[in-house]
Amino acid sequence: MNTKKILSAFVAVTMALTAMAVEQQSPDGNVVVRVELNSQGTPFYQVFYKGAEIIRPSRLGIELAEENSLMDAFRINKTSTSTFDETWQPVWGEQRDIRNHYNELLVEMEKASNGRFMNLRFRVYDDGVGFRYEFPLQKFLPYFVVKEEHTEFAMTGDHTAWWIPGDYDTQEYDYTESRLTEIRSLMRDAISPNASQTPFSETGVQTALQLKTADGLYINIHEAALVDYSCMHLNLDDEKLVFTSHLTPDAKGNMAYMQTPCQTPWRTIMVSDDARDILASNLILNLNEPCKIEDTSWIKPVKYVGVWWEMINGRNEWSYTNELPSVKIGETDYTKVKPHGRHGANNENVRRYIDFAAQHGFDQVLVEGWNIGWEDWFAKSKDYVFDFQTPYPDFDLKGLNDYAHAKGIRLMMHHETSASTRNYERHLEAAYQLMNRYGYNSVKSGYVGNIIPRGEHHYGQWMNNHYLYCIKEAAKHHIMVNAHEAVRPTGLCRTWPNLIGNEAARGTEYEATNGSKPFHTTILPFTRLQGGPMDYTPGIFEMDMWKNNPSNPNHVNSTLARQLALYVTMYSPLQMAADEIENYEPHMDAFQFIKDVAVDWDDSRYLEAEPGRYIVVARKAKGTNNWFVGCTASEHGHTSTIKLNFLDPGKKYVATVYADAKGAHYKDNPQAYVISKREVNSKSSLKLTAAPGGGYAISIFENTPARHR
Amino acid sequence: MNTKKILSAFVAVTMALTAMAVEQQSPDGNVVVRVELNSQGTPFYQVFYKGAEIIRPSRLGIELAEENSLMDAFRINKTSTSTFDETWQPVWGEQRDIRNHYNELLVEMEKASNGRFMNLRFRVYDDGVGFRYEFPLQKFLPYFVVKEEHTEFAMTGDHTAWWIPGDYDTQEYDYTESRLTEIRSLMRDAISPNASQTPFSETGVQTALQLKTADGLYINIHEAALVDYSCMHLNLDDEKLVFTSHLTPDAKGNMAYMQTPCQTPWRTIMVSDDARDILASNLILNLNEPCKIEDTSWIKPVKYVGVWWEMINGRNEWSYTNELPSVKIGETDYTKVKPHGRHGANNENVRRYIDFAAQHGFDQVLVEGWNIGWEDWFAKSKDYVFDFQTPYPDFDLKGLNDYAHAKGIRLMMHHETSASTRNYERHLEAAYQLMNRYGYNSVKSGYVGNIIPRGEHHYGQWMNNHYLYCIKEAAKHHIMVNAHEAVRPTGLCRTWPNLIGNEAARGTEYEATNGSKPFHTTILPFTRLQGGPMDYTPGIFEMDMWKNNPSNPNHVNSTLARQLALYVTMYSPLQMAADEIENYEPHMDAFQFIKDVAVDWDDSRYLEAEPGRYIVVARKAKGTNNWFVGCTASEHGHTSTIKLNFLDPGKKYVATVYADAKGAHYKDNPQAYVISKREVNSKSSLKLTAAPGGGYAISIFENTPARHR
Repeated sequence: MNTKKILSAFVAVTMALTAMAVEQQSPDGNVVVRVELNSQGTPFYQVFYKGAEIIRPSRLGIELAEENSLMDAFRINKTSTSTFDETWQPVWGEQRDIRNHYNELLVEMEKASNGRFMNLRFRVYDDGVGFRYEFPLQKFLPYFVVKEEHTEFAMTGDHTAWWIPGDYDTQEYDYTESRLTEIRSLMRDAISPNASQTPFSETGVQTALQLKTADGLYINIHEAALVDYSCMHLNLDDEKLVFTSHLTPDAKGNMAYMQTPCQTPWRTIMVSDDARDILASNLILNLNEPCKIEDTSWIKPVKYVGVWWEMINGRNEWSYTNELPSVKIGETDYTKVKPHGRHGANNENVRRYIDFAAQHGFDQVLVEGWNIGWEDWFAKSKDYVFDFQTPYPDFDLKGLNDYAHAKGIRLMMHHETSASTRNYERHLEAAYQLMNRYGYNSVKSGYVGNIIPRGEHHYGQWMNNHYLYCIKEAAKHHIMVNAHEAVRPTGLCRTWPNLIGNEAARGTEYEATNGSKPFHTTILPFTRLQGGPMDYTPGIFEMDMWKNNPSNPNHVNSTLARQLALYVTMYSPLQMAADEIENYEPHMDAFQFIKDVAVDWDDSRYLEAEPGRYIVVARKAKGTNNWFVGCTASEHGHTSTIKLNFLDPGKKYVATVYADAKGAHYKDNPQAYVISKREVNSKSSLKLTAAPGGGYAISIFENTPARHR
Repeated sequence: MNTKKILSAFVAVTMALTAMAVEQQSPDGNVVVRVELNSQGTPFYQVFYKGAEIIRPSRLGIELAEENSLMDAFRINKTSTSTFDETWQPVWGEQRDIRNHYNELLVEMEKASNGRFMNLRFRVYDDGVGFRYEFPLQKFLPYFVVKEEHTEFAMTGDHTAWWIPGDYDTQEYDYTESRLTEIRSLMRDAISPNASQTPFSETGVQTALQLKTADGLYINIHEAALVDYSCMHLNLDDEKLVFTSHLTPDAKGNMAYMQTPCQTPWRTIMVSDDARDILASNLILNLNEPCKIEDTSWIKPVKYVGVWWEMINGRNEWSYTNELPSVKIGETDYTKVKPHGRHGANNENVRRYIDFAAQHGFDQVLVEGWNIGWEDWFAKSKDYVFDFQTPYPDFDLKGLNDYAHAKGIRLMMHHETSASTRNYERHLEAAYQLMNRYGYNSVKSGYVGNIIPRGEHHYGQWMNNHYLYCIKEAAKHHIMVNAHEAVRPTGLCRTWPNLIGNEAARGTEYEATNGSKPFHTTILPFTRLQGGPMDYTPGIFEMDMWKNNPSNPNHVNSTLARQLALYVTMYSPLQMAADEIENYEPHMDAFQFIKDVAVDWDDSRYLEAEPGRYIVVARKAKGTNNWFVGCTASEHGHTSTIKLNFLDPGKKYVATVYADAKGAHYKDNPQAYVISKREVNSKSSLKLTAAPGGGYAISIFENTPARHR
């Protein structure tokens, strides 16, 4: 970007403002958007919150691969406004009712020189703005190729940001807290190794990006309804403090292939002077289309355990043998090789997890490594890597499902694709049919490694199309999808609620391998969770990995009490108790919280929040009067005095508090917790302290605590 | 390539020859292969025919994307020889019995420095050589990425070549006849425009490449069994006269992704001092694997007509309306648009072709443009371009199939993919199921335009994998495949005989648009047809396109008599009578040959042949004593005296000769033909003259000619 050109553009805009600017404000009047064309016919927008500018005049435009880009020479043919107010009920969620209330501004533009049309649609909410580019069906632009989207987000100062490096292939970075001007110098350290990664800029970051101004305003930039388009990153001009959109390219360097009528995803800017509003916002869900699945009765939140952590921590393996450096699915005969004896997905181990799940009221048992192909699945750019059909010799597909079903448990399917997406699509129908046949209703899918077709990236239009294709095909089979390594969510779970989870960020698995900073879980709800639930896999009770696997020196940067709190702070309809059975058994008193906690909610109240510091949230379990409270804190710890005024007045409750014990610390004393019970009511307040890297969890049951959901 | 290095390598080889060379010869001793390592441990091979060198010492080697390429530092661990002699029966073909008789040489090599193994396997036939690289399962090379294959074919002189430009995306070029040293100067003119094309070199050509030496030797270079690898081109060093293999790259510039155990396709060199031997050779079929389809009873040769030429010549359209610049499958409502009235695949027209097919003994009627999506199918890089399911409003899918079946006719399915291959694979199963449901047993598929996924090419490993996937999936549904714009065939029809045809060269359609040189059909059997049958679509009776469509000025460069001959000279189990019904009606006497001619054979005898000049072949219809003879000639015409000594001695036959009339000429008098009948026997000889761009066809029936096959 040429800096001089930007400067002169700003001058022009300022001059044009009085003559041409159109505005729209939020229902409460706090958020105002102003849109104008500069003298070159380039559209700019500007955002204000409570009278203060929060987005300086920022360019809008789409660069095409062909000539006559949609960047300038526009005239405004028409502007119109409207209001929308609707309350809808999600299939699952943080609240029973979600209000979608906005004022809209539609700016219809034409490039008079060649009869091309582009509209800008803004929806202004009390907690922010969503806007998108729309391309009506038109004679002179039926199809086009996007070379780049040039949407600017011009910052008003050197804000504090909680950011991860922009990357076409991984979102699994640890967060960095810094000023905008510090991003460049911190980038190198921020780019930690990953199985597939393509960072693109020294100042490139991902969305959702959480910012805080010197004046204490919280700003969040993300996108909503990412459909048939490539994922947006933000590239910072750290002299001018302007973020510009940077899309994910395909193998030819193009960003998107468009057919009118069509539109971009929504670009979202949330804003508030209270961080809790950012967490409570439903702006991104509201910008997505209503549910497209007619009968949703088969979509159910899931609490699960699994044969998984033992592979993550290195004690066991997904693979079956060491004798096969080169597996050919359909040719390799596994009955003729010697097992290495550390295959986690064996009948005995799976039955043990089924027993445990049934005993403690879980819904499902995830089993990874059940199907052949794990001996050479990674980093080989192997096309036919899995068939998603054939179990290992020691995994009795029918017998284990029958065993589970007899105990009221379902197995959770696992489809690691190794990012070989053509192969996955070729086997998808048969794989889903197999799931239907054996009674699976949910699948954890994975996209580890570089994408096949080669040259495509995890977050490009090609792959975004693939992820959604799988979700739609799964819906036909009444299958819920939890896709790992897929693109970060953008609220599509409203439209396709069988998308019950995603990874799309640095999950708990990193605690067993590289570690994450103690403040990690105080940021994720501000960023990653804005677009939809995360399969974060909390519930680790044994923080020292060497106790699972003597050769693993890693440590989980969390107290045990915080691990409980995450079931509340990390909202998801899909929650795993991720640790091994052996690690729960010494702490069944604490494990009780995991058994008790709900996975679907009628209401959520964010009690305290500061990104990178602490989050305290209370949620009311679906269809009950029971509440659960969670607090997660950074390495600084956190002391709260929380008021229980969300409880029904006049009713009596029993609160069970799972707190860090005195002296608890994420690093050297993580398992020190205390459990206490007390009677509470709507007038109670509780003073609680989270240790460094700690937290607390509270169950609040009306009358006697129910032992099972 | 560094010329000096090559020179010094040759010196080294010469020195090493006495010490290290190993040889193998053909069963008749005429063809000899010599293999040796030079002092750098680089393998070279050399080929002799009847004592004369025909391939000078030529390097062999595979360059890897990683280090330690398989190019040098080899030692030979073991050499071994064997002999093979087997006669097999193709499901359909030019002969009932095919003899596969060769002597083999296996050279097992090791790169001692790093324990990598590569073998060279040579099969030496009386009519040429096939060799390939083999990569055994090995510890230090379980997977590798091919950066380039460096197989040389060092010519012994400045041969005459019949060549088309090397290209990753099209094979539909007109042939050029020139000396090797003239290729560079002729390349620019040879690269005519195509819907998708990627030429790569000023001296790059395609295989099969037909060559002729100054000494009158015919040499042909191609490949066999192209499976899970990218297609080979030849790049000429026109100073040293050395061809080097150049593979088709993927989006990342890599050529192939390999998993041991594996091998390359066979590289083939046919040689003879008689051009007829090149045409009669079964070397490429023999180098392919035996048939993998157990029950082949459903695979039947097909003679067909179709709703097609009227679109090719521009009189009618595949599309239905002019009102849809942007079609969205599943959303666009075709019942609400105005038809343009030139949609060829309408009920009335299709019924007319069904009637015609039934009346004249054809098997099938191809209908293109039956399914929605043709309004914007091309050049839009449109992902969801067709669904292969939904007919246009004026095409009664069930009714027309019922109508056809009642008359003993089947419709032929058409699947144009617009090269959007993910979309095709997503719909493949449903599309094949639809074919089964309505009684289709064959599909013409097409890959016009640039490949999606973008960055892949028509002839790369990715697409070759796709083509074979479709063939295998089709076989499960008992469907025969005729893929257009797919990679040139390499004999895979032996293994998968439901691959009954391909285009993969410049077909008759070009005669209606750009024209082809008059000698075109005297070259194709030497080149394109080496790998398998071509859906050439002969049988054009009206050469002036303006008579079909006043705005089309093109002319077919052939006489009518030659159009008949092509049913014999262009061997295929799939033969179309491609012209419009209206153009056959004035010439039903000549049309009788098309009705009579067989599409499957017990024997074939190449009577005369010279590439670029003429081909005369006699074939014996399967399970009968009837013979058909065809002659195609260049612009120079051709006069033959052919002996009918292939007929059964002592039996009487009636020969019907369809010949160019006196004064016939491809350009200004193409429809001048004479039909004559005479009694013949095994002692008869016939003197016949083909006009410039002409030919002749003969049916020879034992006793009375059968009017229907």
